[in-house]
Amino acid sequence: MAKPKKDARPVARLPKGLRDIEAAELRAQRAMLDKIRDVYESYGFEPLETPAFEYTDALGKFLPDQDRPNEGVFSLQDEDEQWMSLRYDLTAPLARYVAQNFQTLTKPFRRYAVGNVWRNEKPGPGRYREFTQFDADTVGTDSVAADAEMCMLAADTMEALGLKRGDYVIKVNNRKILDGVMEAAGLGGEGSAGQRLIVLRAIDKLDRVNFDGVEQLLGKGRKDESGDFTNGANLSAAQINRILDFMKVRVFDDSVDAEQDAKRRGELPPVKYESGEATFPSDAMSFSAWEEAVGDSEVGKEGVNELREIAELVRAADYGTGRIYFDASVVRGLEYYTGVVLEADLTFEVKDEKGNLVRFGSVGGGGRYDDLVARFTGQKVPATGFSIGVSRLQAALAVLNKDAPSKADGPVIVTVMEKERIADYQKMVQELRGAGIRAELYLGNPKKFGKQLEYADKRGSPCVVIQGSDERDAGQVTLKDLIEGAKAAADIKDHEEWKEARPAQVTVAADDLVKEVRKILARHGL
Amino acid sequence: MAKPKKDARPVARLPKGLRDIEAAELRAQRAMLDKIRDVYESYGFEPLETPAFEYTDALGKFLPDQDRPNEGVFSLQDEDEQWMSLRYDLTAPLARYVAQNFQTLTKPFRRYAVGNVWRNEKPGPGRYREFTQFDADTVGTDSVAADAEMCMLAADTMEALGLKRGDYVIKVNNRKILDGVMEAAGLGGEGSAGQRLIVLRAIDKLDRVNFDGVEQLLGKGRKDESGDFTNGANLSAAQINRILDFMKVRVFDDSVDAEQDAKRRGELPPVKYESGEATFPSDAMSFSAWEEAVGDSEVGKEGVNELREIAELVRAADYGTGRIYFDASVVRGLEYYTGVVLEADLTFEVKDEKGNLVRFGSVGGGGRYDDLVARFTGQKVPATGFSIGVSRLQAALAVLNKDAPSKADGPVIVTVMEKERIADYQKMVQELRGAGIRAELYLGNPKKFGKQLEYADKRGSPCVVIQGSDERDAGQVTLKDLIEGAKAAADIKDHEEWKEARPAQVTVAADDLVKEVRKILARHGL
Repeated sequence: MAKPKKDARPVARLPKGLRDIEAAELRAQRAMLDKIRDVYESYGFEPLETPAFEYTDALGKFLPDQDRPNEGVFSLQDEDEQWMSLRYDLTAPLARYVAQNFQTLTKPFRRYAVGNVWRNEKPGPGRYREFTQFDADTVGTDSVAADAEMCMLAADTMEALGLKRGDYVIKVNNRKILDGVMEAAGLGGEGSAGQRLIVLRAIDKLDRVNFDGVEQLLGKGRKDESGDFTNGANLSAAQINRILDFMKVRVFDDSVDAEQDAKRRGELPPVKYESGEATFPSDAMSFSAWEEAVGDSEVGKEGVNELREIAELVRAADYGTGRIYFDASVVRGLEYYTGVVLEADLTFEVKDEKGNLVRFGSVGGGGRYDDLVARFTGQKVPATGFSIGVSRLQAALAVLNKDAPSKADGPVIVTVMEKERIADYQKMVQELRGAGIRAELYLGNPKKFGKQLEYADKRGSPCVVIQGSDERDAGQVTLKDLIEGAKAAADIKDHEEWKEARPAQVTVAADDLVKEVRKILARHGL
Repeated sequence: MAKPKKDARPVARLPKGLRDIEAAELRAQRAMLDKIRDVYESYGFEPLETPAFEYTDALGKFLPDQDRPNEGVFSLQDEDEQWMSLRYDLTAPLARYVAQNFQTLTKPFRRYAVGNVWRNEKPGPGRYREFTQFDADTVGTDSVAADAEMCMLAADTMEALGLKRGDYVIKVNNRKILDGVMEAAGLGGEGSAGQRLIVLRAIDKLDRVNFDGVEQLLGKGRKDESGDFTNGANLSAAQINRILDFMKVRVFDDSVDAEQDAKRRGELPPVKYESGEATFPSDAMSFSAWEEAVGDSEVGKEGVNELREIAELVRAADYGTGRIYFDASVVRGLEYYTGVVLEADLTFEVKDEKGNLVRFGSVGGGGRYDDLVARFTGQKVPATGFSIGVSRLQAALAVLNKDAPSKADGPVIVTVMEKERIADYQKMVQELRGAGIRAELYLGNPKKFGKQLEYADKRGSPCVVIQGSDERDAGQVTLKDLIEGAKAAADIKDHEEWKEARPAQVTVAADDLVKEVRKILARHGL
């Protein structure tokens, strides 16, 4: 009889790749966002919020993973049948905003934005379809100083979040150099645009597929573990080698464990240059290697020169190669970048739940996208930015801080001893709240007192307030210190003994409620 | 030649009913959200975040405006063709979350949530399709104390946001009383469910259509200004009068201008009861009128008794009828409410841009929804909550605070006098940031110095840093106090005179940069 009704009920479940975020993680996230915001604000950026979805044509299609339905985005229709899409990043909406408001904006326009973005991609462990980004962008200047600033902003943000030097690096490259290398390898011109995009995406996959995988993707193609085959760029052996040689140029100083890093990537250890903090010969050596790789390509040379300028600016501001270095393997997946690209990487390894060593890798990235506003206006508006993948970075920080003590941050619980006197208990709760103390009335069924204590315990409550008829008649309340009590209980063998001892419990005048609760909180540094 | 290309470009525009939120509003919003969060936290609620969209069947269909396509929601499809919808509130996702995690949750489960919701409704002035809600809910208790707490939470939140007593009221009602009145009017039973829903929605429109409009909607129907006709509930005159009489029962004390309120609604002034803060006869009188209206209806009597309990609890905690009162015209638009409903209303009138007197009205609401979790599990899980319409409330606060002085909160701008020395300027910027001072390098084209000052001015910069070749040779920097300068400039007649005077400008040792900038900031209380 109940069956048909039951079948009609929806199942409480989440769509694939989505998740709920609970209290502890949300509190940590908020603390983290506040720190990031402080850094971005200190750089002079102003907040802006754009809507969650926009007309599909206004967002454009720049995602790396375009083989999926909807080309990686989630789309919906207005009642007038126009297609709209949930934003897949915060940069495309910014370009729309700038194009729409160009006349009235103060330029260079400097904005930061924090918000969720959605990607219709294959979900995986720690890889969700909704995630938070925190971006800063400068629009309306082609000054390389703006790109250099993004590199410094990225480094400062990592340190503001408590990451030590050596635990993170900001890797910098320039799409123009890669264009130059491809031009020198005979892949220039409009006719090779498709091949260049495949090369770009192959390089972007280095972290996942190693150099062997990139080599296959530059050639005939690659079959992954699941058996899926990705078509390659079909380059010649000479072209492939030229690109692989270029990718391997990067410079470390002693704070980066270059050998371990190389091993992870399945490559030979890199040449270790000296990197004095004063003269930075390592930058120069890296740039001269790249100059060779781009040959006569004008755009390639321009790319190298821009990185030289960045080096000059960041080194002068005391950011050494242990914090910001140049690495040809960084390309970033988004198609719209036109120049400098950068990536914030966490370099340390940690054990995951299964005991495997995991390296966090990229937690943010960005670069220059000089053509994104021109999509709308036809007028070139140079721009550059940096974006943090908040959830990913938070996961890393959680592992780093996993041994930090957690504290009881639950509310004081006022228990209900006599059901008909609930208004009295409610008044005590208001008294505590009025004094700035987090407090709540037990709202469950008050019949079993043990349940009330159990609830307080589960909520991480530091103390409970009890007033039975005896206390009421005497104008008193009993306060039970749950933190102290838990310690004491650990030393007590059985329930009877516990009842006898009633550890960490005091009975005080009802008028002193606030004062006495404060004493308990103070005892535990709350 | 350029034409075909131009036509292919997308237009930079926003979909109907969506908007961008800029810096000043975002800063005010963040301050506001922090205050609301503090109150919710003080009540012991814990944060939870659910995704932006869910399976359509999991959200259910409870919106008041179901005549629109998609029944008021925005929907999208997964690659496996299942329909999903953007959340239209934060309560339906909470019900899904609770049903999904019921076994492991500590009950009563108390969570708060802040986030955007989306409604595919007709946009209008100040009425957007994406807006922010801030909710608190208690799930797993049928205690009326939980409903009373929502009323107090609502009042405390209004005051935390700076609203004075009398500028807001929390109006409370009970769907059960309305059900009882309808039962007494011969509209009970399954067969009249459709009519009851129409009655509910008619009452919910009181603020927009006044009593005359409600009367029409209870009868044959109503034609609005645009000529659109809404079908009515087709009740008899006797039924209509019974419901209208019931709606007019409410109780004011002196802090609410009952007469003005009545005039606005196009009704006769209400009876003014005495409402001593000690005995609250007004509550009692209101309840006895309602008891008469519900006649023999059991559910109706239950509803009145629940409000009695709420009165007892909130009055004991010193919330008088000037803050929380009972009003039969409050029903709330969402279909899922089953018992107590409440609404936070702003009572003051303000002039809008056109000089019209505008009363803000509802900025939040909530109530009890005991069947929402049972949709999934079949097991009744009583729940109650309160939700703030953040954007609407913020608009009201902005009008209230419109005369508050705005302060220069832009960054210190380090100007570029010699293009080739940009690394030196960048270093000064880092020095200021390192000292906790918001600062940025001018990143536009530095050729025209006037443009740099203009930029600093538009950004609300308190001061600019200047170092030309003379200053550099002397190891100095020049600081220009823009706030002082603007005051002085007001007294100066022409440009020549200004150049001569160079108001509010000092030249100091470059080594004292941070110290001297701090002096200027301190001068303006920054």
